[in-house]
Amino acid sequence: MGMEEVELLQISPSDPRGSPGKEQQAAGVGILLQIMMLVLSFVLGHVLRRHRFYYLPEASASLLIGLIVGGLANISNTETNIRTWFNFHEEFFFLFLLPPIIFQSGFSLAPKPFFSNFGAIVTFAILGTLIASIVTGVLVYLGGLTYLMYRLPFVECLMFGALISATDPVTVLSIFQELGTDMNLYALVFGESVLNDAMAISLYRTMSLVKSHSSGQNLFVIIVRFLETFVGSLSAGVGVGFTSALLFKYAGLDIDNLQNLECCLFVLFPYFSYMLAEGLGLSGIVSILFTGIVMKHYTFSNLSDNSQRFVSAFFHLISSLAETFIFIYMGFDIAMEQHSWSHVGFIFFSILFIGVARAVNVFSCAYIVNLVRPEQRQIPLKHQKALWYSGLRGAMAFALALQSVHDLPEGHGQTIFTATTAIVVLTVLLIGGSTGTMLEALKVVGDGHDGPVGEVSFGNERLEGNNGYIAPSYDVDSDSSSGNRFKMKLKEFHKSTASFTALDRNYLTPFFTTQSGAEEGEQEELMPSSRRESYRGHQ
Amino acid sequence: MGMEEVELLQISPSDPRGSPGKEQQAAGVGILLQIMMLVLSFVLGHVLRRHRFYYLPEASASLLIGLIVGGLANISNTETNIRTWFNFHEEFFFLFLLPPIIFQSGFSLAPKPFFSNFGAIVTFAILGTLIASIVTGVLVYLGGLTYLMYRLPFVECLMFGALISATDPVTVLSIFQELGTDMNLYALVFGESVLNDAMAISLYRTMSLVKSHSSGQNLFVIIVRFLETFVGSLSAGVGVGFTSALLFKYAGLDIDNLQNLECCLFVLFPYFSYMLAEGLGLSGIVSILFTGIVMKHYTFSNLSDNSQRFVSAFFHLISSLAETFIFIYMGFDIAMEQHSWSHVGFIFFSILFIGVARAVNVFSCAYIVNLVRPEQRQIPLKHQKALWYSGLRGAMAFALALQSVHDLPEGHGQTIFTATTAIVVLTVLLIGGSTGTMLEALKVVGDGHDGPVGEVSFGNERLEGNNGYIAPSYDVDSDSSSGNRFKMKLKEFHKSTASFTALDRNYLTPFFTTQSGAEEGEQEELMPSSRRESYRGHQ
Repeated sequence: MGMEEVELLQISPSDPRGSPGKEQQAAGVGILLQIMMLVLSFVLGHVLRRHRFYYLPEASASLLIGLIVGGLANISNTETNIRTWFNFHEEFFFLFLLPPIIFQSGFSLAPKPFFSNFGAIVTFAILGTLIASIVTGVLVYLGGLTYLMYRLPFVECLMFGALISATDPVTVLSIFQELGTDMNLYALVFGESVLNDAMAISLYRTMSLVKSHSSGQNLFVIIVRFLETFVGSLSAGVGVGFTSALLFKYAGLDIDNLQNLECCLFVLFPYFSYMLAEGLGLSGIVSILFTGIVMKHYTFSNLSDNSQRFVSAFFHLISSLAETFIFIYMGFDIAMEQHSWSHVGFIFFSILFIGVARAVNVFSCAYIVNLVRPEQRQIPLKHQKALWYSGLRGAMAFALALQSVHDLPEGHGQTIFTATTAIVVLTVLLIGGSTGTMLEALKVVGDGHDGPVGEVSFGNERLEGNNGYIAPSYDVDSDSSSGNRFKMKLKEFHKSTASFTALDRNYLTPFFTTQSGAEEGEQEELMPSSRRESYRGHQ
Repeated sequence: MGMEEVELLQISPSDPRGSPGKEQQAAGVGILLQIMMLVLSFVLGHVLRRHRFYYLPEASASLLIGLIVGGLANISNTETNIRTWFNFHEEFFFLFLLPPIIFQSGFSLAPKPFFSNFGAIVTFAILGTLIASIVTGVLVYLGGLTYLMYRLPFVECLMFGALISATDPVTVLSIFQELGTDMNLYALVFGESVLNDAMAISLYRTMSLVKSHSSGQNLFVIIVRFLETFVGSLSAGVGVGFTSALLFKYAGLDIDNLQNLECCLFVLFPYFSYMLAEGLGLSGIVSILFTGIVMKHYTFSNLSDNSQRFVSAFFHLISSLAETFIFIYMGFDIAMEQHSWSHVGFIFFSILFIGVARAVNVFSCAYIVNLVRPEQRQIPLKHQKALWYSGLRGAMAFALALQSVHDLPEGHGQTIFTATTAIVVLTVLLIGGSTGTMLEALKVVGDGHDGPVGEVSFGNERLEGNNGYIAPSYDVDSDSSSGNRFKMKLKEFHKSTASFTALDRNYLTPFFTTQSGAEEGEQEELMPSSRRESYRGHQ
């Protein structure tokens, strides 16, 4: 390699931003502003939470700060630099902001309540998201046909339906934590919103492939493509997770003074999973999500106590920073764009349609789940309503919309991106601001919970026998005489989730961790805050 | 902003790497390889340390892994992709890799042994680095004049002298920690290598400014420029550090269940300092270094216990990852370059010259320090030799050389960059591999230390009265009768460092922290490993 080539390797020669010194200085100012906005968001979010002002949760506060700064930047238009300061590299988003958030959502998924509602969560996440995507896609297509909104081809409508079906738990769950809610409802909302990301991405990618090879695709090929993405990414993620569990089980890093080494390796695995899947042409996000679930369930317990506390706090920190940054950026982006009125119609009807689609999703899936559950474990209507209401959109929808700008030319991607950003901002502000009121109106808050703000402590004792429905007892045969064929099938599925729990307890946990399966569940708590609670209590 | 402009904001339009999907996939494979190399480095370093094989410290292992992978990539030249996978963005280096390393070096500086050797450290770092830079620059210039090596203009020789005078403590200090060495020697080596980075950067930037405005510069302007950079960056860093101390003192974040918020804010401050200085056209590195020192000394003690443990582990983790990555990259880079033989001469004589320059630096500064120190606190010759030997070059020299590629056109910057990378690789491999032997030959290891590998514990009791010279008692007036004028000046300076300690204890510590000044020193330990030790012991 000659000198010129070396230089090529060092600096992107097509860098359009002048001399590196000046450029670095400008980047410095931009990042400085971003850090100030981050600090402001954290402080504001904290103050609002302190004063129990639930109409403006942290995510909304970040969005508003972004909106205000973006608005100011838009007015003081003399200095066009401000825009370039916020030059948001898509690569940065996909490589550094999104992975920690998704990993953390898998990592903070507490196994026990998750598994005790596994059947319901999978139904909502897989079947429900499919329903919601198709309903949204069809409605948007019909809206286009009837000139209600900007007209998109059918496949693109389905892509939009898929990407907008990825719900974001952050705001609703933080309010759930503040106010205290039923354990099973929490598990449902959390589990569904975590897993539906994976489903939405896989659907989106499948549709995107259908779009790019539009000739001669039949339903069978589409299904195979979908399974390829979904199952492939899932397997990659689970495989990396299991590998890490075995490594930490046998490397013996939890003895000596090796906390730093242990943590370095632990922190690298999620990223490895993400990049492995991306390198294989699969979905890194789906992969890192399942790595998070597996690493929490198996690898985590092989760490030393100090490292356990450290990595929990580490991933929590990183994902908070990334999440806050994304919300700020979304607000900023909406404020900086010059809107055409055609977008407004699209946004308005989209919001209507996703509300309808989520209703179809939640109520039909709840009906199916209730068919199979015994009387005392039925999902009550107020939980269904809360679940419906909790469907605000966040970082994942934004990420997929960002992707669609490339995938769909002719401005269609741009329309979808603008609409998605607006939907995210609106749902976060409106739903986020009213969740507290809604939860109180539905009377699902505060039952059996008396802690002050920020001191939520859900012990395992609240898991069973709470609010009318209990953990599965797996004695589903008791009323199998009543069933038609469909119901039988569902019960078989229900049984299989039960047998998965048994498999986990009897084989996976002993094999992948240093502890025996029987006592494993005792060490897990539901919420991140309760994790921190035990952290504090530990000293 | 129209649609096209929005797209411009999202994606750099001059991106040369095809479609984003493909590009993302390629980036994925590249990062995957990098993660595997990181994991391999950590594991290999651990295994070598376990087996007490001091000839190949962790940094050398990382370099070698980079060299080997780079060599393999060079041989299997069919796939040119491998090179672009390792496309190393300079921005990434300056924004994400360097700041944590430099912050950590300031943050892990233990105040007590640092302040008790403050005069000596400042002498070595400020005066010594100036001497070393000038000697190296002059020798390289003379080497060019006499056709020994590639000829550079005098200002560029001084720039090279400045950048190559930034020493890197990581390898030597890790061996010091493993083997156990005298506390004061450790403090000297650590303190000098931390502060001389700041000096080297300031000198480099001053010379770079002189170079770009080459007309009508006199010595006075150069000195003013230098003071501007050095004092300005120092003030920015110290200012941000003090601000953070006051924020954490009065925000009351250490009470509730607010560990995550506390840590998020704490983590953002160093970055803020870096970007503030860069935005002001100063040196972010110098600024973040002093922010690290101030934040450790004042802000840190205002955190809750959990957060203290977390942020220590956090910065340690981040800087380990960044450092290992840089060493891997340097090895890789050297292996990938096609070397011209003109570089070889330059490299060979440069190494000779920097050895000479460091000898002039260390022995003359030690002479000055010994003039002022009382008999029992003289720096013994064996410590001077150890200090001389510890001058290997690392990330900082590499960073400045990377910068010089832009600052110096006509291939001069490229020559400096190649030479610096080679010097870093050679000094790390040679000096790093022989430090253990050297320390043993000089008989400065293991005194009073009996812990096994990785279990070094330097308590405060070792601080005083160790190895012949003790902490300063500030009774320097006792032999002031002997002095000539120069010696008097020095003693005044020595006194001023003593009065700084008093100022710190009586005013700064009570003002910026929640603890009273008197007990403050008791909580500090010298080495990161002892920090972790106390972390483990805490449960």
